[in-house]
Amino acid sequence: MAKNEKSAISPTRAQDYAEWYQEVVRAADLAETSPVRGCMVIKPWGYALWENIQREMDRMFKATGHKNAYFPLFIPKSFLEKEAEHVAGFAKECAVVTHHRLVEGPEGGLVVDPEAKLEEPLIVRPTSETIIGAVFAKWVQSYRDLPLLINQWANVVRWELRTRLFLRTAEFLWQEGHTAHATEAEARHETKQMLDVYATFAQDYMAMPVLKGPKTASERFPGAVDTFAIEAMMQDKKALQAGTSHFLGQNFSRASEIKFQTKEETYEYAWTTSWGSSTRLIGGLVMTHSDDDGLVVPPRLAPSHVAIWPVFRGDEGREKIVEYIQAFANELRDVALWGRALEVEVDMRDIRGGDKQWEWVKKGVPVRIEIGPRDVDGGVVTVARRDRSPREKETFTRAEAPAKIRAILEEQQRGLFERASKFRDENTRVIDDYRALGSFFDKEGGGFALVHWDGTPETEVKFKEDYKATIRCLAEPPPGVAWADRLLESGKCVVSGQPSARRVVLARSY
Amino acid sequence: MAKNEKSAISPTRAQDYAEWYQEVVRAADLAETSPVRGCMVIKPWGYALWENIQREMDRMFKATGHKNAYFPLFIPKSFLEKEAEHVAGFAKECAVVTHHRLVEGPEGGLVVDPEAKLEEPLIVRPTSETIIGAVFAKWVQSYRDLPLLINQWANVVRWELRTRLFLRTAEFLWQEGHTAHATEAEARHETKQMLDVYATFAQDYMAMPVLKGPKTASERFPGAVDTFAIEAMMQDKKALQAGTSHFLGQNFSRASEIKFQTKEETYEYAWTTSWGSSTRLIGGLVMTHSDDDGLVVPPRLAPSHVAIWPVFRGDEGREKIVEYIQAFANELRDVALWGRALEVEVDMRDIRGGDKQWEWVKKGVPVRIEIGPRDVDGGVVTVARRDRSPREKETFTRAEAPAKIRAILEEQQRGLFERASKFRDENTRVIDDYRALGSFFDKEGGGFALVHWDGTPETEVKFKEDYKATIRCLAEPPPGVAWADRLLESGKCVVSGQPSARRVVLARSY
Repeated sequence: MAKNEKSAISPTRAQDYAEWYQEVVRAADLAETSPVRGCMVIKPWGYALWENIQREMDRMFKATGHKNAYFPLFIPKSFLEKEAEHVAGFAKECAVVTHHRLVEGPEGGLVVDPEAKLEEPLIVRPTSETIIGAVFAKWVQSYRDLPLLINQWANVVRWELRTRLFLRTAEFLWQEGHTAHATEAEARHETKQMLDVYATFAQDYMAMPVLKGPKTASERFPGAVDTFAIEAMMQDKKALQAGTSHFLGQNFSRASEIKFQTKEETYEYAWTTSWGSSTRLIGGLVMTHSDDDGLVVPPRLAPSHVAIWPVFRGDEGREKIVEYIQAFANELRDVALWGRALEVEVDMRDIRGGDKQWEWVKKGVPVRIEIGPRDVDGGVVTVARRDRSPREKETFTRAEAPAKIRAILEEQQRGLFERASKFRDENTRVIDDYRALGSFFDKEGGGFALVHWDGTPETEVKFKEDYKATIRCLAEPPPGVAWADRLLESGKCVVSGQPSARRVVLARSY
Repeated sequence: MAKNEKSAISPTRAQDYAEWYQEVVRAADLAETSPVRGCMVIKPWGYALWENIQREMDRMFKATGHKNAYFPLFIPKSFLEKEAEHVAGFAKECAVVTHHRLVEGPEGGLVVDPEAKLEEPLIVRPTSETIIGAVFAKWVQSYRDLPLLINQWANVVRWELRTRLFLRTAEFLWQEGHTAHATEAEARHETKQMLDVYATFAQDYMAMPVLKGPKTASERFPGAVDTFAIEAMMQDKKALQAGTSHFLGQNFSRASEIKFQTKEETYEYAWTTSWGSSTRLIGGLVMTHSDDDGLVVPPRLAPSHVAIWPVFRGDEGREKIVEYIQAFANELRDVALWGRALEVEVDMRDIRGGDKQWEWVKKGVPVRIEIGPRDVDGGVVTVARRDRSPREKETFTRAEAPAKIRAILEEQQRGLFERASKFRDENTRVIDDYRALGSFFDKEGGGFALVHWDGTPETEVKFKEDYKATIRCLAEPPPGVAWADRLLESGKCVVSGQPSARRVVLARSY
C-alpha cells in the first residue's frame, strides 16, 4: 500500500498487532466468537481454507502410508489416569461429562437429573493417545500387525479461558496421527518423517517458512520421550508453533498394554508416535501474510483464486457484460494449477462496486477482476492482484489472460514465501551477550535469537522471567539461509557461561 | 453362492439376521465397539467408505449452493430450552458437561473438582438447530443475506443405551444442513430439494432404492412443521430411515430471533430448514447388499475397486509375477470411472492365498484378481467378482482387461440396484384387510404394506401395538414400479374404516 493511503483494516499492524489480527479475521469473514464460551464459529470462507488444508495434508498422510479412522469423543477418566505425566498435563483444563439426562426442575425449566449420574465421568478428548492406545492394544497382536499407521480428523476440547480465534480456543479442529512400530528406530523415523511432512506443507502450501527441531524437555508433550515442532515467525516477530510430532517411546504402550509377538515369539511393547496440527494453522497463515488491507491467502490454499464482478454504466450493455464475465470465468475454470481447476467466484450481488472490491481485498482473494463496458468492447481483462497495491492494475487481452493469471498465481505463491522468509531472516540474530539479548527483546522488537544454552531448565526459567521468551526448538539448520551454520557452532551459555554444543532458537511466542 | 457350500459368515442371514449383521461388520473390518459405552470405533475400511460418502454428498451439497461451516460442539442448556418440543425430544438422552477440571482426590487418583462447576451446564450437541439459530440471528439482518445455505460435517451425541454399530450409537458422525429463507415457498422448496439429493445419492451411489415422502405428525423431528424422509428396505424386510429433511417453518427463527428486514423495510422472521444424514447410511449399505459371505460394496463407493495379489508356486518366477502385478495395477489406475481413477489394492502380505481371497470377499471389494505363473506366461488376467459365486472366474487378455473390469464395475453397480429394487418390490404389498395385515407381518415375514390410514395417531398406536409397525412415510409414487399407482388411490382406513385419500407405507423398522 502506498503511504498516506487509508488502509482497510483499523488498527494497522504497527498500531496494535493483536487487535489488527482480530480485525483481519473478522473482516475476511473467517470466524467469530460464539455464544459458547471459548468456542468459535468457523465461517464459510474460513472453513473453505480448512478444507483445502485438510485435503492437501490428507493426501500427504496417505502418500506416506497412513489410513484414517475415527475414535470416541469421550475418554473415561480411568484411561486418562493411565499415564501419569499425560493426565497431569490435561486434567486441569478439560470438559467433564457427568450426567446423561436433563429433567424438569421444581421451578420449571430443565435441570441436570441427579438420578442420571454416570458411574465414571467422561472427559471430552483433549487428545486421544489413551483411548486410541486402548484400541491399538486389541489391534496389535503380532509383528505382522505393525507398523500400524492411523490418522484421525476430529474436534478436541481443552478448557482455555483466554482464547483467540484460531490461535487458542476451547474447542478446535485438528488431525492427530497415532502410529505403533516394532522398533525404536522405526518409530523415531516416523516421528521425523511427519515433522518433515508438516514442514513441507507449511512451506509449499502455506508459503510459511518454518524451523524444525526438537523441543526442550520442559516444552515436551505430556508423556512423550521427545517432541519435535515446526516454528514460524509471525509479523510481530513472535514464534508460532504450527505442528508437533512426538516420539512416545514405550510410555503409552506400557500404559495401554500395546504388546506384540515378535518373529522370535517373544513379547514386546510397541514403540508409538503421535503428531498433530490444527485450525491454529489458519491463525499462522493470517499472521504470516496479511497486511493492513486485510487477509492475504497463499493462492495454493485459496478458497477462490479469482473474483470477478461487473461494473455497469447505467443500463448500457448489461447483458453483454454478464455474458462476457460468464464466458471468461469458464475459460479460467478450464485452467489447472497445482493439480486442481482454478476456483472462480462470479460476484453478481447488487452492491456498490467499490464495496465489492474492498470486500475481496479484505478476504484476500489472490486475483480480482472488474469487467466494465470498455473491457467488453476492447476484448480485454483488467487484473488486480492481492500482492500489489489495491489500485495497481494490469490489462491483458482476453486470449492471453488465462495463462497470465495462472502465472500471476504461481508468482504470488512464490513471492509470499520469499517475503516471509526475508522477514524471518532479517529478524533472526546470533546473540552471545546477555545484555544484548535484553536489548533485542525489549528495545529492538525481538525476533528469533540464536543463543547458546547450558541445557538446564533453570536457564529456561530465567529466559522466561527476564524476557518472556522460550526456547522454540533446537532447530535443524535451514537450507539456503546465511545464519544456518551458526546454529551448530559450539560456545558458552549466554546465561551461565557453561559449555554449549550448539545454539538454540529463543523467542517470544503464541 | 452355490447351495451346500459353507458360507464365510456365520450365522447366515436366514439363521440370525441381527447377528449376521454384526458379523459382517466385524469380518469386513468396518467398525467395532469401543471401551466407551455406546461409542464405536470406525476402522480404516469403514472410514474410507464414509470418506467416499462424504466426498460425493459434499459435492452435491455444493452444487446446490451450500457452503460448509463449523459450529460449537456444546450447546448451553438455555439454548436447548428455547424451543419447547425440541428440548423435550432431546433432554432425556444427552451428555451433560457440568465441570471443567479434575483434581487429585483425597484417596489419590483424580476426581471432578467441585470448585470447577460450570455456571450453566453444556449439552454435547445432539443436533445443532438452537446453537446455529443463535448464530444465524446475527448473520441474517436483511433480505440480501438470504437465502443462507449452510452445511456442517460433525459428530453428535445422543445417549442411547441399546446401540448397534452404525445403526444406533451414542456418538455418530453426520452432516446437518441448516438454511434460512425469506419466504415459506423457498424454504419448502429447499426441504424438498435436499430430500431429492438424499434419494439421488442413495440410489445412484449406494445402489439402495428408497421411497421418499413426508412422515406423520407423530414421527416428526422435534420442533419441525414437516419432516420428510427417505426409507429403504433391508434384507430382513424392515425399513431403514436413511436421511431426513425438515421444514421448520418459523418455529426456530422465533425461538432464536432470526429476523430480517424486507425490501419493503418491514421485519419478518426467516423460514428455516434442516436436513441430515449420518454414518447410519453405512449400516443401510451393509444390510441392503451384503450376503452370507460378507460385505458387498457398491463399486461407486468402494474404498478399493480391485484387489490383486500374487500366488507363487515355490520360488518359480516370483520377480516376474510381482512386476506383472505392479504394471497391471498401474494400468488399472489409469482407468477413470465415475469421475475418479480406479483404486487398486496390491496385497503383498505374507499370508496364505486362500485366506487372502476370503478376506477380500468379506471386505466386499468388487473385483479380485489372483496372479500366478500361468497368468504371467499366458499374458492374461483372471478376474473374480463380488456379485458372483466366489469360485466363478473369468479370464481376459491383459490388453482387454482394464476395459472389461471397468464394464464389470458398472454392471455390478447397476446389478446391485436392480437386485435390491426387485427385493423391495417383491416384498411390498397392497393390503386392505386388517387380518391380512396381521398375517403379512406375523407369518409371511413382513415388508412394506401399502395401507389406508385415517390420519389419526390412535390408529398409528394400534399399528405399533398389534404389529410393531410404523408409518414410514406418505411415499411419492416411485417411477417405474408396478404398485406405484396404488399409493394415490383413495379408500378406507384398514383399522377404522374411515375415508382415506391415499395409501401410506407401513413397516417394521430400525
